Parts: sequence; structure tokens; C-alpha cells
Amino acid sequence: MKQSKILIPTSKEAPSDAEALSHKMMARAGYIYQISSGVWSYLPMGYRVIRKIEKIIREEMDKIDAVEMMMPVMLPADIWKQTGRYEAYGDNLFKFSGRNDREYVLGPTHEESFTEVLRDSIKSYKKLPLVVYQLQDKFRDEARPRYGVLRSKEFEMFDAYSFSADQAGLDAAYNDQAKAYRNIFDRIGLDYKVILADSGTIGGDNSQEFSAPAEVGEDVIVYTDGDYAANLEKATSKFTGVQQTDEPAELVKKPTPGAHTVDEAAESLGIDANQILKAMFFMAKMGEDDYQPVMVLMRGNDTVNETKVANAVDCEDLELATEEQAQKYLGAHPGSLGPVGVGEDVKILADNYVKVLVNMACGANDDGHHYVNANIDRDFRVDEFGDFRTVEEGEIAPDGNPIKFTNGIEIGHIFKLGTGYSEKMGAQVLNENGRLVDMIMGCYGIGVSRLLSAVAEQNADEYGLVWPDSIAPFDVHVIPVNAKKKDQLEMAEQITKDLEDSGLDVLIDDRKERAGVKFADSDLIGIPLRVTVGKKASEGIVEIKIRKTGETVEVKAEEVNNTVQILLKQLANQDD
Amino acid sequence: MKQSKILIPTSKEAPSDAEALSHKMMARAGYIYQISSGVWSYLPMGYRVIRKIEKIIREEMDKIDAVEMMMPVMLPADIWKQTGRYEAYGDNLFKFSGRNDREYVLGPTHEESFTEVLRDSIKSYKKLPLVVYQLQDKFRDEARPRYGVLRSKEFEMFDAYSFSADQAGLDAAYNDQAKAYRNIFDRIGLDYKVILADSGTIGGDNSQEFSAPAEVGEDVIVYTDGDYAANLEKATSKFTGVQQTDEPAELVKKPTPGAHTVDEAAESLGIDANQILKAMFFMAKMGEDDYQPVMVLMRGNDTVNETKVANAVDCEDLELATEEQAQKYLGAHPGSLGPVGVGEDVKILADNYVKVLVNMACGANDDGHHYVNANIDRDFRVDEFGDFRTVEEGEIAPDGNPIKFTNGIEIGHIFKLGTGYSEKMGAQVLNENGRLVDMIMGCYGIGVSRLLSAVAEQNADEYGLVWPDSIAPFDVHVIPVNAKKKDQLEMAEQITKDLEDSGLDVLIDDRKERAGVKFADSDLIGIPLRVTVGKKASEGIVEIKIRKTGETVEVKAEEVNNTVQILLKQLANQDD
Repeated sequence: MKQSKILIPTSKEAPSDAEALSHKMMARAGYIYQISSGVWSYLPMGYRVIRKIEKIIREEMDKIDAVEMMMPVMLPADIWKQTGRYEAYGDNLFKFSGRNDREYVLGPTHEESFTEVLRDSIKSYKKLPLVVYQLQDKFRDEARPRYGVLRSKEFEMFDAYSFSADQAGLDAAYNDQAKAYRNIFDRIGLDYKVILADSGTIGGDNSQEFSAPAEVGEDVIVYTDGDYAANLEKATSKFTGVQQTDEPAELVKKPTPGAHTVDEAAESLGIDANQILKAMFFMAKMGEDDYQPVMVLMRGNDTVNETKVANAVDCEDLELATEEQAQKYLGAHPGSLGPVGVGEDVKILADNYVKVLVNMACGANDDGHHYVNANIDRDFRVDEFGDFRTVEEGEIAPDGNPIKFTNGIEIGHIFKLGTGYSEKMGAQVLNENGRLVDMIMGCYGIGVSRLLSAVAEQNADEYGLVWPDSIAPFDVHVIPVNAKKKDQLEMAEQITKDLEDSGLDVLIDDRKERAGVKFADSDLIGIPLRVTVGKKASEGIVEIKIRKTGETVEVKAEEVNNTVQILLKQLANQDD
Repeated sequence: MKQSKILIPTSKEAPSDAEALSHKMMARAGYIYQISSGVWSYLPMGYRVIRKIEKIIREEMDKIDAVEMMMPVMLPADIWKQTGRYEAYGDNLFKFSGRNDREYVLGPTHEESFTEVLRDSIKSYKKLPLVVYQLQDKFRDEARPRYGVLRSKEFEMFDAYSFSADQAGLDAAYNDQAKAYRNIFDRIGLDYKVILADSGTIGGDNSQEFSAPAEVGEDVIVYTDGDYAANLEKATSKFTGVQQTDEPAELVKKPTPGAHTVDEAAESLGIDANQILKAMFFMAKMGEDDYQPVMVLMRGNDTVNETKVANAVDCEDLELATEEQAQKYLGAHPGSLGPVGVGEDVKILADNYVKVLVNMACGANDDGHHYVNANIDRDFRVDEFGDFRTVEEGEIAPDGNPIKFTNGIEIGHIFKLGTGYSEKMGAQVLNENGRLVDMIMGCYGIGVSRLLSAVAEQNADEYGLVWPDSIAPFDVHVIPVNAKKKDQLEMAEQITKDLEDSGLDVLIDDRKERAGVKFADSDLIGIPLRVTVGKKASEGIVEIKIRKTGETVEVKAEEVNNTVQILLKQLANQDD
């Protein structure tokens, strides 16, 4: 491909609103162009990367007999109302109307439509299991689109859905997807972690998240040098609490004027913060207009993990109580709460680490006062102990290794859905015994356009982008240093032709630009190998440069093809 | 690919609203599924056809150095307002809002966005010409979606845009596209016509339409057995009028009570309908609130061609005058109009065939009366003669051959846009002389999903679909008649493997269905070749059937691969 025929609008300046390295470099390198806040155009180079990723995904899906099809992006609002998501999805759902007041949504995901198609297409377990997928733009009206194509309003996703008549079919499809995702991300050359993700109240290993470590990632990944990885909501660590053995002392109420935080109370009372109970007060939504007040106790320095609390309470939603609610149920300001004297209408949960404490301090539900020497059972009730705290770096993970934290970009998610959608939409099949059963579903997704950001974040350097060869827009960049010199241009063209004939994607910089401009652009757009045809062309010698390492080697023109093949193989092995 | 793993929900019944053969058969064969009126899902078989068409388009675009990229489908309303199309596009444009009242449209076409990207990316003629394209879903809120995916609200298009600094660049891009379209449609095996399309007031050969003859086509194509093809708006025929030589007789006004049509007047006056002037009265919109009344005269049996009239008047829009407007300007009912005594404020056009008439009859602008023996110049004024009539079958086309009519499906359109968008959006480059010039644009489109309908209309038969091999979802359908018999299944699997190894797409019907069901499904889904492995498998013999002709041949299992290759080549040659 001639560089003069392709649109690569490189630039020395990044857009003023670009914060992330990937955003800056993809914009500077002419890969992407912002049409509107969070709405992007993929210029030819960016789209070539997308297409290479799509190809890898398709190949891996072929291997596990998943079948491609294509849903519309405009979906009738009716089926979204049927499953309750028309309202539940919130402000991120784009809604619009057409002629005759027909209502539509722009699909942010397609569970409803696939369930509808399968419901109307499949009547017997004999035709199951089936796994269908699509590669398609999705739409979410993000409140804060940012980091270029990492978080945008229109973005390409791979989304797959499995349908089976029994649990075994779901498990097999889920495992197939998990394996395919590993293959896909391995081939893309991405550093990623497979993490235990919170799967709500379903429990069990029903969900895995794939996350690419990167500074701009919006999730915190908890991981170890061993096997363990989980998101912060789900992560657990080994319990290392030791039962305190002090004799229980007398419960005393003390004035602690102005002490609203654990640290202030610790200072006021002169005791260790971890000997003070932190009491968090929540309202758990159990159903329509049905709320359960919940108090969660933990050591003063620990952080509550709301997901763990929500799962324990099995609620639809969990929200921190307001000042009014604290006053109503406990008669005090949220900074002065504690478990002593709390009525049965409030459920009291306590973290496991609380169980081993003796003679704790706690808020007295009386502003400006704390109790000291409070003890479980004698002075207050605990309805349920459990792991309700957020883990911290350095703690010991379940695999025995110390926990580390990193930010991560969510790049994939697989999920055992079960029968929720089938039930709501009446998607049933006859099973082996001739009885109607709900189809059991799984849903699976990869953020395709977001992968560009993840790879760029992990690989770009100060000079520009650096693509793994598997998804690079071209394999080789051939640069005649002076395209006006006939010998250089002809040799470059011959090398290009030879490389293309051997199946490689080659970009030749046939522009009449200065050498400095060409080299800077070449570094910026980040093609894995560069073949420079310069003055030594007259001696039949060219230079090959590896973008990633900056290493160069001079070879004879007739050895370029061979050398390129070897170097690309080496690079591919390094990326594994 | 195993048929048990792919979703092909065949059915004996077509949807009750299906009128077109292509709609019926694609729905019955499980290629498409309607999600909502005019909104379709492409099931795996349908999507495989789409993907094969996309591949052909990409290969032909590569050949002419057109470059693929991808725009968003949600577009900010701003740039559509800038070009005036936000209002002008009318009710077919889907409009919606997101957070912070940001307004968007769903792109029905992308001139604005490409102009914006190129404007911001290209500053010099040195980087031009460039041709960029995309394969993408488009959106139009059709008032009457119908014929399955032929006319739908969301549909896939190929759309390309060329940008150049001079006319030569535009001409080259336009000619490249025209050639590529012929290659594409040839390879798809479609019967199509390249027709002269109306290009509004620009004149010249600025637009070509590609149309596939089919009964359900919504355009009338005028063509000959020679080279000529045009749409009905644009078609012309050789003038065969002969000057009448009667002496002009005296103008007489006659009562013709109740005669509102040409035929009624002819009967009332006892003269030939073609000796009566049909006077059509239009209001031509020349600009904002600026209307020109226009009377068009033609022979009584001729049909006015509004496009030709609009081009002659050079107006923005042409509408038949209302009863009130006829009364206001001419003082009579629209059925009683004529040119005699009409003031200078009304422009009078007459078809060339009127020029040779002598002693015509015409409406007298007095309800219930006609003039007879009216003559040009003596009795009425004609401001301009021209070709304002619609051609008819049997007339002689400009190429000397008799004109035929057929219905056609518009499958492609190429168009020299000029500088309209560049001017409105400030898309300029420096030319060779260092002066800022508007980029000159062309736009080009192929209806990708609609091609499925066109091919199916031309090729389907009473048993189902018949695909040309170039876009068939699979090349070969292998059917073990009884999949429970080990020898049949094993031989079928071996044949499948051999064919796949030689690069073919093969579907094997591994389902435990009755033979009759398998054969009926096979005919319905229309894969070009069928290999049936039945009882003679024990003798090592199978049957190959050509879907299109129904011909069968028995071959030894080891000859299947070779025979299939030969048959596919023969079929490809027939389609040319």
C-alpha cells in the first residue's frame, strides 16, 4: 500500500483534552478522529487494527463452533420494556422515536433480541446448545466519555450468547468462551489478567472478567505473582485475626466532643483505631418500596466492601443511609453510630475481624459520646459475621501470595446468565422428557475498540505507538529515504513487492517528504518493522529497524524478506 | 461446518406479510428475521452472504487504491444543520438526543462527516486525490418498509467518497468506481444495467445508477437490446414528429360540457387525442418563498416528465398546482386549462411534439369550453420547446434500438458531487499555485443488504433460494442421507474434510432428520452444489446435484473433490 494513497493525518500536537497516552498517540498518529464528545471515527490505520482484531476473534470463535450473525442496532423499545431494562438501564440508554411514534433504543447489548430470535427459531433441545455472536457497534450515553476510544458513546463490541437446554451445555459454552478469550488476548499480545468478578447474588464461578493492567484503567485489580486475581469488590484475603484475651471490662460511656471520625475518636480516647468499631449504616432495597436498615461493623482502619455486604443481605440495591435515616433509626448523626442498644429492626453485620476483639470502643448513638469496653453479645448483638471488608495490598491472597494492586481496563467479561431472560420472554424448548424448559443462557463480551486503547497504553512510548505484529495495521514499513532518487525508490518498491508476495502487509512511504519527517511519522504510527532504503542502496544494502526495541541491522536487499520473516517470528514469541 | 451447530431455522410457511419472492424465501430459509417493521436481523446464513459480498467489494476497492475506514453511525446534528440537510432530509432522518440535550442523527449517509474529517486532515493538494470508504449500517425511517431487506429502516451500505483538488482527480475517481462496480456486480453474478440517472441541474454525465432488473423493483428502467439504459426520468427517444401541413383555420371556442380529461374532450370535439393539447400547470420553487408558475403543453396522449421540466426550469422543487392556484392564475379548473390568453407571469413550456401540430384543440381557461384550431404564435405563446415527455415502450432509443421497460432494484449509484459540501463546511486545500480551493467531491454507494434481495429475486425458484457460488453462504452442501448409518456419516465427513482442505466452505447436514426434510431444507437454503451420500456409499458412490439446474451426476467418492472444482468453475462461467 502506498502511503500517498492512504489517509494518515499525523500531527505533532495531541488534542488539548487528551490525558491518556493511548489517546494522545492514536490521535497524533492519525488513527482516530473525534466527531463529537465520545463519538469517534476510525481512520484507515485505526480501522486496520480493528479488522485484524476482528479476524483473530472470528478464527477463535470458529474453533469452538460459535456462529456469527448480525442484529440491528436500532431495537424496538417493546422487548426492553418486557424485561424491565428500558427503565432499569438508566440514563446510559439512548432512546428515540420514529414515524407513527414507534419507540426504539440504540442497543447497548443484545440479550433481548437474541432471546427473541432463539425463542422463535428453536423448539427442541435437539437443536441446542448453540452459540451465536456478532461484531457490532454498541451505544451507551456515558456521562464522562474520556481517554479517547477507551470510554466512548459508540464503540465496537464482540458479543456472544449461548443457549442450552441444560446446565452442562451452559458450562461447556462458558468454558469454551473462557478458553477462546485467552487465545484471543494471547494472540493480540496483551498483558491481561483473568479475574474473579462479582456475579451478584448468583454465587459460584459464574463470571470472569478479563482486564488489561494500565495506569488509566478504571478498575482496581487485585492480583498476586501466583494464580490469584480478582476485582476489588470480589477479592478476599486470608484471615489473620487473633482472638484477644483481655478480660472484658465494664462498659463506660465517655464524652468525645467533636470526634466524628475513627481517627478523631482514637485520639480523643487514646486507643488504637483498630480497637474502635466503625459502624456504617445502609438502607438495603429488598424490593419495590421495601427497605431493610443494615449496620455494618468493622475495625476502625478497615474499609467496607459494599458489594460483599449487598451479596450477604441479598438486596437489589445498597445505599449509604442519609443523615435523616440515621436520626430516624438510631437517633444520632452518622459519625456517632454504634451497635449498643440497636433494635431488632436494624440488621447488624460484623466483619470477621471484629469477632476476635475484646473491649472495643464504638459510637454511642449519642452525638459527642463513645462507649469503651463494648463486647459482643454482652453489650450488643451481631446478626451475622462475614468478610465485609476491602482487601489491602500486602495481605495474603487465597493462593498464599502477597496481594498487589494495579489499575486495569476491562476488556472482556463472560457471564452465566441462567434463565432470567428466557423466563421473562417465554423462550422455552422441549427437553428430552418432552417437557417445556426455559433456555439457559450465557452472555460473553469483548470490547473491540477498547482493545486498541489497552494495547496502546501497554506498548506506546515517547515516540509513538508500538503495535504487536498480530494486530499491527501493517507488518513492515518500507521507507525510501529520498523518494526522488530513482535507485532508492525502485529498490524500495521491489522490496515492498517481494514482502507483499510473501503474504505480508506492507506500507511504503512514497511521499516526497524530508527524511526526518518520514522517520518521525514512522515511529509515531508504530509498524513493527521498518526497512530503510537510503544511501547504501547503491551498494545494495538497507537497514531494518525493530520499532519496539530500536535495534537496527543492515542487510543486503535480497536478504530482507528472509530477515523480516525471522524478526517477525521472534517478536511474536516475545509477545507470548 | 456442522449443520447442527449453526442456526438455520427453516420453515414451510412464509411470513403472512411477505409479498416478494426474495422475502418469502429468505425468511423461510432462515436467512433473515424481522425484529420490528423494517428492522432485520441477519441470521448466520444471511450474514455469511453479506460477508462474502463485503469481501468482493473490499478486493475491488483495493485494486483502485480506495481506503477503508469507519465513521460512527450516531452523528452530531450540528454538521447536518450546517449543510441544511437536518431539515431538508425530512421525515426519513432519525433524530434523537442524549445527555445535556446533545442532538444527534442516525447517519443515512455520511457526506458531512467525511468532509469534516478530510477538512481537518488535509491541507494541501499534494495529499490528494484520496478515496475513502466504509461498509456500515445506515438508517432511514422509511414510510413503507417492505419486501424484506429490500427496503428497510436499517440496512448495510458501502459508501465511498472521493476528494480531489481538481476536476481530473474527480473524473478518475468516478471512472475507477464505475469500473469497480461493474466488477463487483459481475462477480456477484447479478444481471444488472448501468443506467443514465438524472443528476438534477448539474448536467452532463455526472451520475450513473446500477439497477438489477426484478419484478419487485421500485424503479422503471428504460433499456434496449443495445447499449442504452436510463431511468424513466432521464430516458429520451428519437424525435419522430412530422410537421403538419394543414392550413391554419379560424380559432373557435366550443362548449365541451363535462369534458375534464383529454379523452372526454376528444370525444366531445370528435378529434384525435393527440391533436389536443394537454396543459399541466405547476408551481416551481425557485428559492425561499419564490415560486414561478409554469404551464407545460404536450400531446393529449403523452405523459409529462416532471424531472425534465424541473431541470429545464432549474428549480429547487416542482409541484402540481392546486385548484386554488389554477383559479388564481388562469381562472379555471385544472381540467380546463390551455395556453390561449395566458399572461407573461406564467412560463409556458411545450414538448417538441407540439411544435409540429397545426389546428390544435386546447382548454380555454373557461370551465366547460375548449378552443379548436389553436396555433402556435398566432393564438398562444410558447416560451421554450424541449423534451418534456416520458418515453414509451417501442419508441426508438438514442442508440437506434426499440425501447423496453423493466422494473429494477437500485443497487448502486455513483455521483459527482462537486464542491457543495466543501463550500458549506469550509473544506479547502492549497492548490499547486498556493491558492485555497474547495475540495471537489464524489460520492458512491452500493446497497449491500439489498443485494441479497436482488440476487434472490433473480435466482430463487419454487423450491427456494439459488445462490451464485461467489456469494453463496457455502460452496457445497454434504448430506449423509441417514446420519445414523456409520458408513454414510463417515464418508460424508471425509468428503467434507477433503473439500474444506481444498479451500471450500462446506456445510454438512449431520442432523438426525428424515431424508425428505434434509433434501427440502437443502433446496430451500440454495447452496450451489449438493453431495448426497446415500445407500451407494457402500459401493463408494455418491451423487452430486447442481442446485440451479437440478442436474445430477454419480461419482466415486474419491472423485468428488475434482468434480466439485470443475462444476463450480462451470457455474462461475455461466454467471458471467
